[in-house]
Amino acid sequence: MKIDFLTLFPEMFHGVLNESILRKAQEKEAVTFNVINFREYSSNKHQNVDDYPYGGGAGMVLTPQPIFDAVEDIRKQHNSEPKVILVCPQGERFTQAKAEQLAREDHLLFVCGHYEGYDERIREHLVTDEISIGDFVLTGGELASMVITDSIVRLLPGVLGNEDSPILDSYSSGLLEHPHYTRPADFRGLKVPEVLLSGNHKLIAEWREEQSLKRTFERRPDLLEKYPLTEKQKAIIKKWQNGN
Amino acid sequence: MKIDFLTLFPEMFHGVLNESILRKAQEKEAVTFNVINFREYSSNKHQNVDDYPYGGGAGMVLTPQPIFDAVEDIRKQHNSEPKVILVCPQGERFTQAKAEQLAREDHLLFVCGHYEGYDERIREHLVTDEISIGDFVLTGGELASMVITDSIVRLLPGVLGNEDSPILDSYSSGLLEHPHYTRPADFRGLKVPEVLLSGNHKLIAEWREEQSLKRTFERRPDLLEKYPLTEKQKAIIKKWQNGN
Repeated sequence: MKIDFLTLFPEMFHGVLNESILRKAQEKEAVTFNVINFREYSSNKHQNVDDYPYGGGAGMVLTPQPIFDAVEDIRKQHNSEPKVILVCPQGERFTQAKAEQLAREDHLLFVCGHYEGYDERIREHLVTDEISIGDFVLTGGELASMVITDSIVRLLPGVLGNEDSPILDSYSSGLLEHPHYTRPADFRGLKVPEVLLSGNHKLIAEWREEQSLKRTFERRPDLLEKYPLTEKQKAIIKKWQNGN
Repeated sequence: MKIDFLTLFPEMFHGVLNESILRKAQEKEAVTFNVINFREYSSNKHQNVDDYPYGGGAGMVLTPQPIFDAVEDIRKQHNSEPKVILVCPQGERFTQAKAEQLAREDHLLFVCGHYEGYDERIREHLVTDEISIGDFVLTGGELASMVITDSIVRLLPGVLGNEDSPILDSYSSGLLEHPHYTRPADFRGLKVPEVLLSGNHKLIAEWREEQSLKRTFERRPDLLEKYPLTEKQKAIIKKWQNGN
């Protein structure tokens, strides 16, 4: 997979792309990253990339020319039709399902604005996917595009070894994770639940299943609506709903 | 405000914390950042920070000792009781309202795990806030904690100058942003809507209001449920609902 980032702040990417799983994924040749300052594509003599909004108002708006030219140059260089992703509050909400879908692509290109708005012609005629990572305001698209990249790249074949076992994959089962405990069994008087020390695998599995269900019931009841509950699980939840 | 990050990957932070608004916020002394490798707090002779889960299973679990000791050392150093934030899929969903709430704190401390699970005693006896940025799986808490930091720090008094006017603040109005356009008025035959070139401020304001409403109606109808619509806006939406 190839992933390109168009940004005015290329320095933001270095540390993130060259550590941990994203570094390993590059070493294993599962992905190549390319961070491009789209200011270099500005045909304006001052290399400007933004201008005042038509119709007035505060703030600046990214002009179409540098971003169109950068995307077209990348398409030509790679002889490829990448997904062109704009990260913005108006976009489709990013989910694990979207990560899995994008992980099947060959080439992704993130357009990262910063402070400014985007000229609407960029959205309408260049961008293929608008994605939001949540209902909160960020200074730019850089961090959001790195978040999306991390969630995608770890899904690429061969990237996660056994040593990186995805213990936190709450969304793969459809329920939140049960609690985890490790050594020591007694930390400053705080003890690990007896059952986990029992060696009884059947009891441990039951405890974990019930804890997972309980945490989901308490914190994310919306996930239970989509989950194929067994009759036994339904009975347990009924009990909790009645406050027992 | 002080913000500390406990992480095993301190190199991930440098580029992000030292560019753009986060750099400016440090220069203006609105915030100080401190990135700490909690491996340094391990009392284990091999400086291990994780161990196998009690009860069996794949993956590793972060042990309580290094993280408890690191948090307690930071508390003592700063004579402060920071909010101790764990970023994890099981947490409360991060929103702009939560960013505004956290922006009123003096001291935040992010605990960033990586691959591993957390020993439950860390959650129960050390952490004050568990936050999730969305329903997707990341390799670690680092990127999520940087996302949360960016959204908080830009809200601190004096951080955003007029030059950084938050044009993208979709959530401040409760509706999504209307489209923006800037020069040129004709880019490769793609034209800016006439009304924005008209100079008629009343018409421009009306167009923008309707576009903002339309985009919200099409992309985020859930936001309209909480929005105090005028009778006129309700009538317009009724028309759209009937397919006109």
